[in-house]
Amino acid sequence: MTKENEPADLNRDDLRSRAVAAARGDAPFDVLIAGGTLIDMVTGEFRPADIGLSGALIASVHAPGARTDAAEVIDASGRFVSPGLIDIHMHVESSMVTPDTYACAVLPRGVTTIVWDPHELGNVVGRDGVRWAADAVRNGVLRVIVLAPSCVPSAPGLELAGADFDADAIAEILSWPQVGGIAEVMDMRGVIGGSPRISAIVQAGLASGKLVFGHARNLAGGDLAAFAAAGVSSDHELTSAGDLMEKLRAGLAIELRGSHDHLLPEFVAALNALGHLPQTVALCTDDVFADDLAAGGGLDDVVRRVIRYGLRPEWALRAATLNAAQRLGRPDLGLIAPGRRADIAIFDSPVGLRAETVLANGAVIARGGMMTIPSVPAEAAGLRGTVKLQLLTGTDFRIPAQGRRARVATIDVPRFTRWGERVAEIRDGFVETPPDATLIAVVHRHGRADTRPRVGLLTGWGNWRGAFATTVSHDSHNLTVFGGNPHDMAVAANAVIAMGGGMAVASGGQIDARLPLPLAGLLSDAPLDVVANGFKAVRDAVGRIVDWQPPYLVFKACFGATLACNAGPHMTDRGIADVASGTVLESPVLEIL
Amino acid sequence: MTKENEPADLNRDDLRSRAVAAARGDAPFDVLIAGGTLIDMVTGEFRPADIGLSGALIASVHAPGARTDAAEVIDASGRFVSPGLIDIHMHVESSMVTPDTYACAVLPRGVTTIVWDPHELGNVVGRDGVRWAADAVRNGVLRVIVLAPSCVPSAPGLELAGADFDADAIAEILSWPQVGGIAEVMDMRGVIGGSPRISAIVQAGLASGKLVFGHARNLAGGDLAAFAAAGVSSDHELTSAGDLMEKLRAGLAIELRGSHDHLLPEFVAALNALGHLPQTVALCTDDVFADDLAAGGGLDDVVRRVIRYGLRPEWALRAATLNAAQRLGRPDLGLIAPGRRADIAIFDSPVGLRAETVLANGAVIARGGMMTIPSVPAEAAGLRGTVKLQLLTGTDFRIPAQGRRARVATIDVPRFTRWGERVAEIRDGFVETPPDATLIAVVHRHGRADTRPRVGLLTGWGNWRGAFATTVSHDSHNLTVFGGNPHDMAVAANAVIAMGGGMAVASGGQIDARLPLPLAGLLSDAPLDVVANGFKAVRDAVGRIVDWQPPYLVFKACFGATLACNAGPHMTDRGIADVASGTVLESPVLEIL
Repeated sequence: MTKENEPADLNRDDLRSRAVAAARGDAPFDVLIAGGTLIDMVTGEFRPADIGLSGALIASVHAPGARTDAAEVIDASGRFVSPGLIDIHMHVESSMVTPDTYACAVLPRGVTTIVWDPHELGNVVGRDGVRWAADAVRNGVLRVIVLAPSCVPSAPGLELAGADFDADAIAEILSWPQVGGIAEVMDMRGVIGGSPRISAIVQAGLASGKLVFGHARNLAGGDLAAFAAAGVSSDHELTSAGDLMEKLRAGLAIELRGSHDHLLPEFVAALNALGHLPQTVALCTDDVFADDLAAGGGLDDVVRRVIRYGLRPEWALRAATLNAAQRLGRPDLGLIAPGRRADIAIFDSPVGLRAETVLANGAVIARGGMMTIPSVPAEAAGLRGTVKLQLLTGTDFRIPAQGRRARVATIDVPRFTRWGERVAEIRDGFVETPPDATLIAVVHRHGRADTRPRVGLLTGWGNWRGAFATTVSHDSHNLTVFGGNPHDMAVAANAVIAMGGGMAVASGGQIDARLPLPLAGLLSDAPLDVVANGFKAVRDAVGRIVDWQPPYLVFKACFGATLACNAGPHMTDRGIADVASGTVLESPVLEIL
Repeated sequence: MTKENEPADLNRDDLRSRAVAAARGDAPFDVLIAGGTLIDMVTGEFRPADIGLSGALIASVHAPGARTDAAEVIDASGRFVSPGLIDIHMHVESSMVTPDTYACAVLPRGVTTIVWDPHELGNVVGRDGVRWAADAVRNGVLRVIVLAPSCVPSAPGLELAGADFDADAIAEILSWPQVGGIAEVMDMRGVIGGSPRISAIVQAGLASGKLVFGHARNLAGGDLAAFAAAGVSSDHELTSAGDLMEKLRAGLAIELRGSHDHLLPEFVAALNALGHLPQTVALCTDDVFADDLAAGGGLDDVVRRVIRYGLRPEWALRAATLNAAQRLGRPDLGLIAPGRRADIAIFDSPVGLRAETVLANGAVIARGGMMTIPSVPAEAAGLRGTVKLQLLTGTDFRIPAQGRRARVATIDVPRFTRWGERVAEIRDGFVETPPDATLIAVVHRHGRADTRPRVGLLTGWGNWRGAFATTVSHDSHNLTVFGGNPHDMAVAANAVIAMGGGMAVASGGQIDARLPLPLAGLLSDAPLDVVANGFKAVRDAVGRIVDWQPPYLVFKACFGATLACNAGPHMTDRGIADVASGTVLESPVLEIL
């Protein structure tokens, strides 16, 4: 069974006939889940009920003990039976593992469906990367609805990614049956301003009859209305309870995301104040690092957290199941009722949500947190060799200039960047890094332009006693290097180039930690614990060369420092880009003094 | 614009661009609804908001007074603004008017979408009748989602309708773009028992990817599970609060219907006890007689009543809008938010629900309870001439028998019929009607079999001082005549035959009242008030010849007396049918004594 057959796979005459016969009592069930407490996503009740399955179908939900005839009986006594969880917006790439490895991480936790925006693969490998994503998941047990990345690149003209998706490219991807729509439309200004490029992409989504997911960060008032009027219909970029309420009122499908944990308590408070859970609210992870995935889980962790922050368990679970299924137009999912798909998680408690047994398409696929069936990794040769770079030297990470002193531009403050200036000394033909500045370099690695590093100056990033290089760098994923000195930057960068992608930390001219991500420079085909440990080692090593100052000066900020679609100056492979003016400054040298 | 273009009609690039420009403030709105209180179906709030429209699209929902630039401003001060109401299950034929007349009756009341099962037209005129229905509504302002009648005839082998729809016929109808699915699957026993005929029809519905609506009267336990497991996904045949709860738990889409008013208070109480309105609950009218339509309205009347019975107005309206739209897979409907379709009702109050202004596709189509645009009646010549009968005589309504006395079968009790017996005298070759019995005759009128009236004996129907003849007689709509004596029965029947269909009441050999329904013997092309008055005259006239004893011995029961798919004996054009045994008794004479 391939995913592109869904949900029609449930409509086979023989399957329906078997389920009808089993329901009316003329044939045994294939599987009977007995003795548990069903969490009813429609009524909100926790009620004792047994569940009979025929193949991938739920044939019957009936009084406890009413039936015993089944090929296999699963004892759910003392347990809570829920539809499998649906993660309505996420990027597998954030976990730095293959989709197969991701599936094996979340399925045993009760997540049976994810909606994957392979935006990072698209930016690096282009259409073939999205095709690989769609093919990689088609035979897996995890139900993966793949989306067409809308913003490749996210800041056209300001950066060069590995590809460029116009409306025709998007339309082609949308024509694949396993593709469920257009992924988060991030070019908000383009949509609101009527940019031909992004408008045509949104139109392609509408024309396909599939969903057009959104990214409506900080949109309000007329801008928010314009974004929604264009046909974009969801948001996960919520920044406050007030923002949540405004977007509920705007009719957007809400995707509350776990990646911004500090906001969840106020979202929960806002929903509790409303007194009911709107049917337009679903949950998502968005981004989960490998070590967090291994330790905490996927969407199950988000559900647990919103419950801990005070959301009723039945609301949290309804958001993660029935509401998500309705948004996706998948009546086969999100509810335990006859005629629906048997994607079922049996949890220890409706609060702890430890999955003891998980069924997908009516078959047990995990028990006790472990997969019970083998997984089939997808062939990934096509994702290798994406770091198209020669080794670099320390000089490559210096800013050339003639004269004695220069006025130079700086990118001030992590995350909410703004333009700054310094007067810097020039020595031996290069700018001396001002004492409070950190170097950042971005190197085009996709083979579509020159590979001369563009070097800039950050302030507010603390004192770096070494360097960090990464090919995970949103959204174009060019090789990005942060550092206190050019030599360590070259050492770290060369380690990453030698691995064919990944992350490396250097100090004192030595490599402190490295994580190979040879697939598109984004993913590893190693097991999750290996990747998690490798990432943790990198995270810890970076923590030793720079003093983090939360909430903004944090390790995570490194991966967003090149996100040129956001407001403010951002370093890209073309220079220092500013989306507001649409300009790129190739060198920070503004004036020789 | 034709309905088969929906919802894609909203996706035109120029329309979206105009809406985006208007939303962001760079162009005026076409229409601005200002000063009203918006009923927010997502949050449940009643909040002040202005609404800007561009063409058929809602472009903006914004703070009161924030914008004034619009070609047309509608003052909604002191009014309540709601999405247009959606009637999720109904039969236009029950109102005995053309769909155009029906539309003009409900649109000014705020009903902008109906889901029409043209089951009665299908039973009389066959595929061409359904085709006529689909064509008749395609250019109208009322959004009509037509369904493919699943049960033509409803009791195969026990009656002869005007047509016979097998799975191939259903599949062809489902292929028409304006058809939204399969209408209420009434052959419940067939579905549960795996009858090849109805199973193939349900499979055709599933294969089409469209909806399969249900009719799950008195189904519970394993039968209900089997019905749902087959793929049937809704029910409106609820009989009690307990039945409602069982069907909510079974995951069925619930269609609470206004036609059974006495049940609504307990449904409301059950939902209030649950503490929230499940997103699977919608509202419908099912059947509304012409006079009730003229006096009370359509779905608006149902919403008013459930509110009067204690449902919160925002719940009642959410059921009638957003929940219905979600069930129908129509994200363009059911919500006032940017990017949605501008089907809007402006009500005097959220309780009284008198629509003062109604917009469909962004245009004002009714004010003050009156249409403001002309309607275009559909050509209906193809529906005429469906009463294929010669005039009848009194003898035709007598039960022939030889001998002196006979044991005869009776159909006891209206509505929940059961078999009975009497010993009757035979005089001059005919059975004498027992003193407590009423005659019923059904005459095949579709030209597909012999037209000899089948005559039976009812008990529990009181003392009839005349006769009532009708071509509206569920579900085969053969000519059905009730009476106390054969002569009046012939008089009434001949009046109906002469009209080409309709209803007539006779007593003392004279016609007391008549209602011509020349279109399929079901509909009139006269204005609603004419039909309503005609029907009321018939209703009153019948009330003078028989003493009704509610709740079961009521005028309405006449139209269901031939519903052979229901349990118990029922008269059809073939004789006295019993669905449980699958038998038909041509004459009630069981034995000559």
